[in-house]
Amino acid sequence: MTGNIFGERFVLVSFGESHGRCVGAVIDGCPAGLMLSEKDIQRELDRRKPGQSGITTTRSEADEVEILSGLFEGYTTGAPICMVVWNKDVDSTKYETVKYEPRPGHADYTAFVRYGGFNDPRGGGRLSGRTTISYIMGGAVAKKLLRETLNVEILAHTTEIGGVKAEEKSLDEIRQADGNPVRCADPEAAKQMIARINEAQKQKDSVGGTIQCVALNVPAGLGDPVFNTLEGDISKALYSIPAVKSVEFGSGVDSAKMTGSQHNDPFALREGKIITLSNYAGGILGGISNGMPITCRVTIKPTPSIRKRQQTVNLLKMKETTIELEGRHDPCIVPRAIPVVEAMVAMVILDHAISAHLIPRVLGKKI
Amino acid sequence: MTGNIFGERFVLVSFGESHGRCVGAVIDGCPAGLMLSEKDIQRELDRRKPGQSGITTTRSEADEVEILSGLFEGYTTGAPICMVVWNKDVDSTKYETVKYEPRPGHADYTAFVRYGGFNDPRGGGRLSGRTTISYIMGGAVAKKLLRETLNVEILAHTTEIGGVKAEEKSLDEIRQADGNPVRCADPEAAKQMIARINEAQKQKDSVGGTIQCVALNVPAGLGDPVFNTLEGDISKALYSIPAVKSVEFGSGVDSAKMTGSQHNDPFALREGKIITLSNYAGGILGGISNGMPITCRVTIKPTPSIRKRQQTVNLLKMKETTIELEGRHDPCIVPRAIPVVEAMVAMVILDHAISAHLIPRVLGKKI
Amino acid sequence: MTGNIFGERFVLVSFGESHGRCVGAVIDGCPAGLMLSEKDIQRELDRRKPGQSGITTTRSEADEVEILSGLFEGYTTGAPICMVVWNKDVDSTKYETVKYEPRPGHADYTAFVRYGGFNDPRGGGRLSGRTTISYIMGGAVAKKLLRETLNVEILAHTTEIGGVKAEEKSLDEIRQADGNPVRCADPEAAKQMIARINEAQKQKDSVGGTIQCVALNVPAGLGDPVFNTLEGDISKALYSIPAVKSVEFGSGVDSAKMTGSQHNDPFALREGKIITLSNYAGGILGGISNGMPITCRVTIKPTPSIRKRQQTVNLLKMKETTIELEGRHDPCIVPRAIPVVEAMVAMVILDHAISAHLIPRVLGKKI
Amino acid sequence: MTGNIFGERFVLVSFGESHGRCVGAVIDGCPAGLMLSEKDIQRELDRRKPGQSGITTTRSEADEVEILSGLFEGYTTGAPICMVVWNKDVDSTKYETVKYEPRPGHADYTAFVRYGGFNDPRGGGRLSGRTTISYIMGGAVAKKLLRETLNVEILAHTTEIGGVKAEEKSLDEIRQADGNPVRCADPEAAKQMIARINEAQKQKDSVGGTIQCVALNVPAGLGDPVFNTLEGDISKALYSIPAVKSVEFGSGVDSAKMTGSQHNDPFALREGKIITLSNYAGGILGGISNGMPITCRVTIKPTPSIRKRQQTVNLLKMKETTIELEGRHDPCIVPRAIPVVEAMVAMVILDHAISAHLIPRVLGKKI
Repeated sequence: MTGNIFGERFVLVSFGESHGRCVGAVIDGCPAGLMLSEKDIQRELDRRKPGQSGITTTRSEADEVEILSGLFEGYTTGAPICMVVWNKDVDSTKYETVKYEPRPGHADYTAFVRYGGFNDPRGGGRLSGRTTISYIMGGAVAKKLLRETLNVEILAHTTEIGGVKAEEKSLDEIRQADGNPVRCADPEAAKQMIARINEAQKQKDSVGGTIQCVALNVPAGLGDPVFNTLEGDISKALYSIPAVKSVEFGSGVDSAKMTGSQHNDPFALREGKIITLSNYAGGILGGISNGMPITCRVTIKPTPSIRKRQQTVNLLKMKETTIELEGRHDPCIVPRAIPVVEAMVAMVILDHAISAHLIPRVLGKKI
Repeated sequence: MTGNIFGERFVLVSFGESHGRCVGAVIDGCPAGLMLSEKDIQRELDRRKPGQSGITTTRSEADEVEILSGLFEGYTTGAPICMVVWNKDVDSTKYETVKYEPRPGHADYTAFVRYGGFNDPRGGGRLSGRTTISYIMGGAVAKKLLRETLNVEILAHTTEIGGVKAEEKSLDEIRQADGNPVRCADPEAAKQMIARINEAQKQKDSVGGTIQCVALNVPAGLGDPVFNTLEGDISKALYSIPAVKSVEFGSGVDSAKMTGSQHNDPFALREGKIITLSNYAGGILGGISNGMPITCRVTIKPTPSIRKRQQTVNLLKMKETTIELEGRHDPCIVPRAIPVVEAMVAMVILDHAISAHLIPRVLGKKI
Repeated sequence: MTGNIFGERFVLVSFGESHGRCVGAVIDGCPAGLMLSEKDIQRELDRRKPGQSGITTTRSEADEVEILSGLFEGYTTGAPICMVVWNKDVDSTKYETVKYEPRPGHADYTAFVRYGGFNDPRGGGRLSGRTTISYIMGGAVAKKLLRETLNVEILAHTTEIGGVKAEEKSLDEIRQADGNPVRCADPEAAKQMIARINEAQKQKDSVGGTIQCVALNVPAGLGDPVFNTLEGDISKALYSIPAVKSVEFGSGVDSAKMTGSQHNDPFALREGKIITLSNYAGGILGGISNGMPITCRVTIKPTPSIRKRQQTVNLLKMKETTIELEGRHDPCIVPRAIPVVEAMVAMVILDHAISAHLIPRVLGKKI
Repeated sequence: MTGNIFGERFVLVSFGESHGRCVGAVIDGCPAGLMLSEKDIQRELDRRKPGQSGITTTRSEADEVEILSGLFEGYTTGAPICMVVWNKDVDSTKYETVKYEPRPGHADYTAFVRYGGFNDPRGGGRLSGRTTISYIMGGAVAKKLLRETLNVEILAHTTEIGGVKAEEKSLDEIRQADGNPVRCADPEAAKQMIARINEAQKQKDSVGGTIQCVALNVPAGLGDPVFNTLEGDISKALYSIPAVKSVEFGSGVDSAKMTGSQHNDPFALREGKIITLSNYAGGILGGISNGMPITCRVTIKPTPSIRKRQQTVNLLKMKETTIELEGRHDPCIVPRAIPVVEAMVAMVILDHAISAHLIPRVLGKKI
């Protein structure tokens, strides 16, 4: 399948460019009978949109969604749902000059090779963080479906920015993470993270960070061994978010230091239900969910758009040169990536839940 | 697509069980005209098979491959290639007793839920590390194809076991890593790793570790943004290896601590070719290869099969209980996972190279 | 994959409803560097749109296409191409009354079952001939690509309407078939066909017919045995056109009466090229193109929308009843289906040509 | 997906060659808990195997199936099921001489182009009717699953051979069609068909024919508009059977002569169930099953292997020449194609039934 199509049974098709007319999505495979309106999508888009706080890009976009198909009398019909966000505040002047001088850390060079120079270079064109608007669209529908059918809850939050780490917090605190600009469940760490971002920005630089995502109430038995493991599908989904450099589950990279007797999660019974006493597995064993919370973590690299002078190559003249970027950028993309992480995790879990026949093809009865 | 089928254009179908008649694979989409024989496969299988050294399981399997279809007069025909390894040293007695008492850290419980108890429990059945024999089969063909058409070289080696880390080594040293039982490019670290494994075994315990994989000479331009990124596809492939808990590219988890000015790899010209002066990107930008070495890293959890007494639940009686495993296990699976990692990375790169039209449908000319 | 997505490497995603806001398509997998504009699409849409002659529906739609993404400076970029046609002349009043009284021969009843009554019933909603606008969009791009890269020409024309059969005609005459309202290469038969349609309309009835499609200059070697045969893929594509009841290749149903010695097409040499002296195979052997013209034929059933009183069941009351349709319908859909047939055949051939590496990923060079 | 893999959720992977070591299949996606043994497969293989009567090839193959994986204690486990039939009576001498002289009507030439001459030419190699053994394997499992879960019954029978047409017969008579060598429900016509075949054989020639297939008790609501229609998927499946030249549903090619008022099947109520009073639709409307019997028809071309002298081209010398085939062939392949048609129809219906959540992932309960 081609590169702008995601999923098997709940499918997201993404289209649009950073400085084109719009960014949009088509969802195919959505069950009929889900009450849905622009509001459901907008709520999630608002969490991603620029300008939410002083630490994001100054590009001003309301990012208002319009649903073009797939609804009738307030419910999904089972037909494909097309949605768009029209681009409004497009300023492409600053990109003209660097058209053939790829920005380090960006996809300019690889897109140039892949598309022979025909790719839209304005604002990164198709390879811009702005395309994650379409991920949010799909995720908003997936989250609503999962919540209403299986009571699944998906929560992402910031656990590290620029070397500042958050303390481990309770689920209730995690649910409040959206309350501060960095979306960190640890308010003390949040303050330091904001300071770290501001400092980087002053230095014309940027910082990276880490996001944890937890999926609660995921039924045991999701995932298809041996190749369509739940980890594998979530991981692939998360790597479609620009800037992700690692994906871990449960104990992740720390597993290398552990022994089997530390790492094995003992099985136990609680209120007649099988649980594990620890969750180093991250809720997945053998590629299949075990009923415990699914926990994963992504590392987001520092935003490649920085204002410091950088070395590159002019592709037309094939000569080394330097560039100094202007444009409008986030000094740290982590906070705005939070809802995108949730969206991707939601779509994968939903896809596997449909495959496991846990989501009906029609929700409720019309007559 | 179902769970035992992997890839889009170069496709691996895996079948077989740990204690069944065989483990095997069908490869579909292999170009015609590749000279191929059992030897090409056996060489890689020998790197995975048990009993290579004192630190692996005592299960004694020659793991000899037999090719059943897809070859004619020593060349691939373009037809599906079916291969099998017949299981020989099957000892299922030890598994009977624990049929309904899932081993912590194993897929016994999740397989039970997923397949309603009909799954073959002997030696983990389908969810056994033994199924990676089929990965090796596909990888051996993929590696040969990549080598002969694009000169791509894929090298995995152990970088950490049970907390013992290897020093960074040169490519030449990495190429020699197979020389010691732990497949570590750093001979000093290797000795300590072996000691660490032996110690764990004495304590009826196990250890995990880390594997790095490098793919050299991968052409720029492979990968399909936005959803079929090269990282995403490699990551999904690596997560189909049992026990993997993290997948990183380039700077990986360390990116969280870096600034953009540190992390951005500057572009430069060397002998008329565009390169980057550092490789924090791990050879991939925007999901597309940039011509630099692709570097990724997986964490392997400690083998869940340990001889210490562990807590679990009897699924028939729904009562908590404890188990003590016998059977034959590797105290550390990392060394035997090395060729499996290479196999998965090879198949993904090959698949993308076919998609980029870099691998012909027919190699050479018969007449 | 879900039901509104078509193709493997050149992919068409269809969305929109008959009486919703729009009908549209996303094309993913289009090579970069194809000069493309709305005109290329509009030319084909104009061949499908209603109101072209006295024998089509009176619904008045200009069906003007708007391209929302995937182009930059007049060329395709390799990014997904989203296009829409906004619905203008929507009259849904006549459908309200029959909401739960399915029209015989239509998909009303099956859509009701499939989507639990949540489907948009206005004008057939998603299951309307109007969705073939999206097929045309994909086909227009596919035809242009095939023409410019391989000189492939795809020609469909009417061979029978309501029992009136056309004589076999030359390629040059077939190329002129668009010249009459029924798109028949035989002008004499065309007149009778028009008379037959007018007669049916007077009787509040409708008629069916047959369309032949010829694809010229298709290279030998396209098609993937054993399951992705060229016939199989074309056939599946053609059955996605509403009202198709049969798909034949070459000698088709007449093969049942023939002997092997009649049917086998002898191989011969003409100007150093291998040809066959007859073409009962329809240009395909063993699922693979043989370089001769690909010839296929579809039967289109009579339009189910007729003004005669018909028997049906009221789904709410579960009682038998009768209905008399109003609305605006084509008494024979064959002429307007011609460009749709071409579009589907074009997309399948293109997909296989990409798979055979005959279509480059980038056309030409930008710099 | 590659060409030897069929289906989305119930997947058949086919491998093996006519004169290689075996023909086999892997089924992936089979629910766990189906009681299955070699007998279930053998029963269907016996209906396809050569030498059942005087009118089939004299190649003598017992075609005994061996199941290599996917079963445990007599039930399917949910793991892939690998099966093989080992080739026994292989006589490749007669094919050597015609290696580069493609037989008219066969896939020799197109396979040569597609695979650059590396394809196995012995007995057609991969492109032999013998590969349909794997279709039977998949179909046998699909039929058993459909029967046990939904009571679906699939019946194919011969309706025409070499111009001799059968009268329309009752379902009970169709169920008896296997009783005569041509599998025709009309015993009178059967005698003439046999005479027609014998006559053709005497003249070193062959004949074609027509097969009808009926699927009973298929629930309404199967099929995914607009591209994954039930007709489209069945049609693609049937075109993977060598020699098929047309696929029709319901009224098929005759629809071209009908009016809407004749063709529209009126809806009615019978015992509280919605039915149609006629079934010109063939059980499918808008690509979705309507609960009536699904009826389709394929035309099988005359066997291309005939003993008459035929014209061809020597591919090495690029010179015209003539050949006279020896080898062992069926003068009419129709009777042996009957179970193959049933198999393909069964797999498609099963796949859609799984997609509609009508087939559980686990049949019954083990404990």
